[in-house]
Amino acid sequence: MGRIKLTYGIERVNMNEQISQAVIRRLPRYYRYLGDLLSQGVERISSNELSVKMNSTASQIRQDLNNFGGFGQQGYGYNVKFLHEEIGKILGLDKVHNMIIVGAGNLAKAIVRYDKFERLGFPVIAMFDVDSKLFGTKINDIPIYSLDELEEFIKNNRVDIAALTLPKNNAVKTANKLVSLGIKSIWNFAHVDLQFDDEDVVVENVHLSDSLMQLSYNITRKCNDE
Amino acid sequence: MGRIKLTYGIERVNMNEQISQAVIRRLPRYYRYLGDLLSQGVERISSNELSVKMNSTASQIRQDLNNFGGFGQQGYGYNVKFLHEEIGKILGLDKVHNMIIVGAGNLAKAIVRYDKFERLGFPVIAMFDVDSKLFGTKINDIPIYSLDELEEFIKNNRVDIAALTLPKNNAVKTANKLVSLGIKSIWNFAHVDLQFDDEDVVVENVHLSDSLMQLSYNITRKCNDE
Repeated sequence: MGRIKLTYGIERVNMNEQISQAVIRRLPRYYRYLGDLLSQGVERISSNELSVKMNSTASQIRQDLNNFGGFGQQGYGYNVKFLHEEIGKILGLDKVHNMIIVGAGNLAKAIVRYDKFERLGFPVIAMFDVDSKLFGTKINDIPIYSLDELEEFIKNNRVDIAALTLPKNNAVKTANKLVSLGIKSIWNFAHVDLQFDDEDVVVENVHLSDSLMQLSYNITRKCNDE
Repeated sequence: MGRIKLTYGIERVNMNEQISQAVIRRLPRYYRYLGDLLSQGVERISSNELSVKMNSTASQIRQDLNNFGGFGQQGYGYNVKFLHEEIGKILGLDKVHNMIIVGAGNLAKAIVRYDKFERLGFPVIAMFDVDSKLFGTKINDIPIYSLDELEEFIKNNRVDIAALTLPKNNAVKTANKLVSLGIKSIWNFAHVDLQFDDEDVVVENVHLSDSLMQLSYNITRKCNDE
């Protein structure tokens, strides 16, 4: 498995805008399975073996990974550590992304206390709220500031991602403020769709109600099938 | 807009297995926008007007809703209240789904305290944990029991959904136990894919790390584009 070929693979990511969102959505899952294999001491794996573990097909796996130049070698399979690292790079996990959380409620607490995010390179560096009782307090050593201090904080600190864990009615206004302050990436938990004129702004939504309705739909369908 | 036609529309949902998951994934979003319109007192809306609000296209909206028999009338548009209710029924929101949460950590607290889920028909009726300090305590009036009491609780109470907010390493074992006790629907927050022999079991995953990696991928791509 030559370095040259692999470098070429990585270059293709930047040039090729045609990689479908479906493939990209599957990458974190590859990353997770490869991470598990690594921690089990597995050094290499064939697309067949990986497909069994992932409840997928070998051809799907080969196709997906071919989008990024392959990584595999016939008769050898995939080098687990290498593939894990390369997918990590594609996902931007080789860089640290500083995160702030706006809305210091239970969901924010859950995020701050879940050390996995920091291990993946997404440390929470501050939280913001409108509740003055919270100002100056800390959760998991992360300070909570007043929302009024947002502008100054963003001026003085590198903030890569803002997580929005606010009620729906405050989310749009706050998101616009964040974008006006230069924030380009929003992890949105508020149950509202955010739209911005600035096309450089990236939004990733976690709509828990939608997910629950999806489950409910599938339950209902199963019941009607019977 | 005749009742007969609409009843026919609903029947088609049960018969037609061909509705794509993409359409179904969009239904909660329709439900949300129609709910907003309702609360603003809007009685009817054209597919054009709705498409502007939803940042979609009128033809996409008409196509999506045609999967369920239409609901619209040319020259009139959609009756907001009626469409909201019908999509609610399709999503199973006309029924109450009792939910338990296994793993009474911060995420569980966030779910229990978010009253939206109860209003949508997903009341949390109990939580379970392995931490004996929590047994007998309540969050938002919802009791926390020992995981050892799970079997008895499920025998004596109707449980429609189990939310799994556990560390990855305990999730698979607990999920198998839940399924062996007759639970058919799992809302899985643990960072692991659950697979069951029982094909009747419905799983909906919320993988927050995957979502964060997706965001990170899009940030990385934007940076490389520049």
